[in-house]
Amino acid sequence: MFNQLGVIGCGLMGGSFALALKRAGLVKRVVGYSKSPSTTELAKRLGVIDVAAESALLAVSGSDIVLMAVPVAATEATFGAIRHGIKDGMLVMDVGSTKRDVVDTARRVLRQQIGNFVPAHPIAGSEQSGVAHADASLYNSRQVILTPLPQTQPDLLRKATDVWTAIGAQVLRMTPENHDAAFAAVSHLPHLLAFAYFSAIANQPAGRDFLSLAGPGFRDFTRIAASDPAVWRDILLANREEVLKQSQRFRFALDALEHVMLAGNTQALEDLIRSASDARGAWQIGGVPRGPAVK
Amino acid sequence: MFNQLGVIGCGLMGGSFALALKRAGLVKRVVGYSKSPSTTELAKRLGVIDVAAESALLAVSGSDIVLMAVPVAATEATFGAIRHGIKDGMLVMDVGSTKRDVVDTARRVLRQQIGNFVPAHPIAGSEQSGVAHADASLYNSRQVILTPLPQTQPDLLRKATDVWTAIGAQVLRMTPENHDAAFAAVSHLPHLLAFAYFSAIANQPAGRDFLSLAGPGFRDFTRIAASDPAVWRDILLANREEVLKQSQRFRFALDALEHVMLAGNTQALEDLIRSASDARGAWQIGGVPRGPAVK
Repeated sequence: MFNQLGVIGCGLMGGSFALALKRAGLVKRVVGYSKSPSTTELAKRLGVIDVAAESALLAVSGSDIVLMAVPVAATEATFGAIRHGIKDGMLVMDVGSTKRDVVDTARRVLRQQIGNFVPAHPIAGSEQSGVAHADASLYNSRQVILTPLPQTQPDLLRKATDVWTAIGAQVLRMTPENHDAAFAAVSHLPHLLAFAYFSAIANQPAGRDFLSLAGPGFRDFTRIAASDPAVWRDILLANREEVLKQSQRFRFALDALEHVMLAGNTQALEDLIRSASDARGAWQIGGVPRGPAVK
Repeated sequence: MFNQLGVIGCGLMGGSFALALKRAGLVKRVVGYSKSPSTTELAKRLGVIDVAAESALLAVSGSDIVLMAVPVAATEATFGAIRHGIKDGMLVMDVGSTKRDVVDTARRVLRQQIGNFVPAHPIAGSEQSGVAHADASLYNSRQVILTPLPQTQPDLLRKATDVWTAIGAQVLRMTPENHDAAFAAVSHLPHLLAFAYFSAIANQPAGRDFLSLAGPGFRDFTRIAASDPAVWRDILLANREEVLKQSQRFRFALDALEHVMLAGNTQALEDLIRSASDARGAWQIGGVPRGPAVK
């Protein structure tokens, strides 16, 4: 049970975390701050937060749990703004989709407060961003990755694990390096490929006619191409090396398929497709089964 | 109204067409043939067909409408088998996902009966193949592309248009060349990319661990990677030139994105992503709106 949750960035992720803790009776009071006052006001009007703070530092002061739900690019400035407000026993978490960059920034900016920071990546989200879409169930049956540092205080790591578990999430721990390598493969590269594919189709002379013929397969394959440009710009740059490594592996696999197509090697082509098809057929989404959702 | 529908290939596509015509009261009798007798028997037991024929030719004889719903690779053999059974006024259609190859084969094999053939591609399907999944509504609110030839008999083209329209489909006409170029872009390339991507992820040392972390975005992006290997082997080979052309356009778009990532050009990266994101956000699935379905 916490006395006060400080939410910095009252958007979908921060707002949903606040609602989830309230619904679970895990927090007495939620203080929120967003860069845009209108967002903070809306969050208060919607009952997502109880008090609108004038600054990130004010949202932190008096809180025993803090969630930073700001764009990756705003991480450094936010750490700088709250640094002097971080007191003993205060749990500070983020929700960033990349972890090495966040951890490096935390080390650099938080210094002696680094032990209070538990880097977190909830595998949840929605194409619909903004506090208006905040949902107390957003993290239910979702995976949350924690990437603790050697300096992370064990009791705060335990608290972080408990609070995510209490709102229905499945908590996993890994190193920031393993996290970024894994999500380059299963999340960041697919977004890069979807952006590239949609651009290639849309930016050709007959693109408009082609798009009018696209069906359900195309719809699902390209859904993530509609993701937020600023968010994905930051993710792709922050995790550039791992994404490019995965892209190289993808290009090799594409080369192999095109090679057998060009060679007219029917059996080899079927074998390559079948290995992918069988593997995908056997795959199931991680974490606890739940209905459709988007990330 | 038709007296007899001859279905060659009593799978999902052929079976669903039979059920749709029956439900719409457009046919008195359905005669079906499948390469595997057990399939034909199952189709009869399920009431998808009324009579099980011993051969493709027998399924055609006495029919005034024939649907060939066989794998693309079986098209030539099927045309050869039914050729002498095609009588005046008989409408013969296929359901192939590629059209130039089917049309070339029809010209070569059907010869003077070519006028009875109306090449068709219904943009519908399911990951669940087989007559057991046949559904009278499969083509409802779907697009059906007809690619008539100069020799196609106008009255049969009209009949083909009427029957698809009567079971709820939206009929479009284009040349076989335009059809294959369009579907290379919006259907065949996405399948190739999904096969390549899934192979690349699954076939790396940490692949198994990575897959356990994949979320809803990955699920939707890779759904088509589970498609039937034999079907897609045939499609990718039959439409190889157009698919490789589209793949080249895709590679250029991917190169452009990776170039600005490597250059750390934040604004250029955001601009490229935004153009794709905005275009995808504005896109809607063609044809009459309907619930989720898969192709």
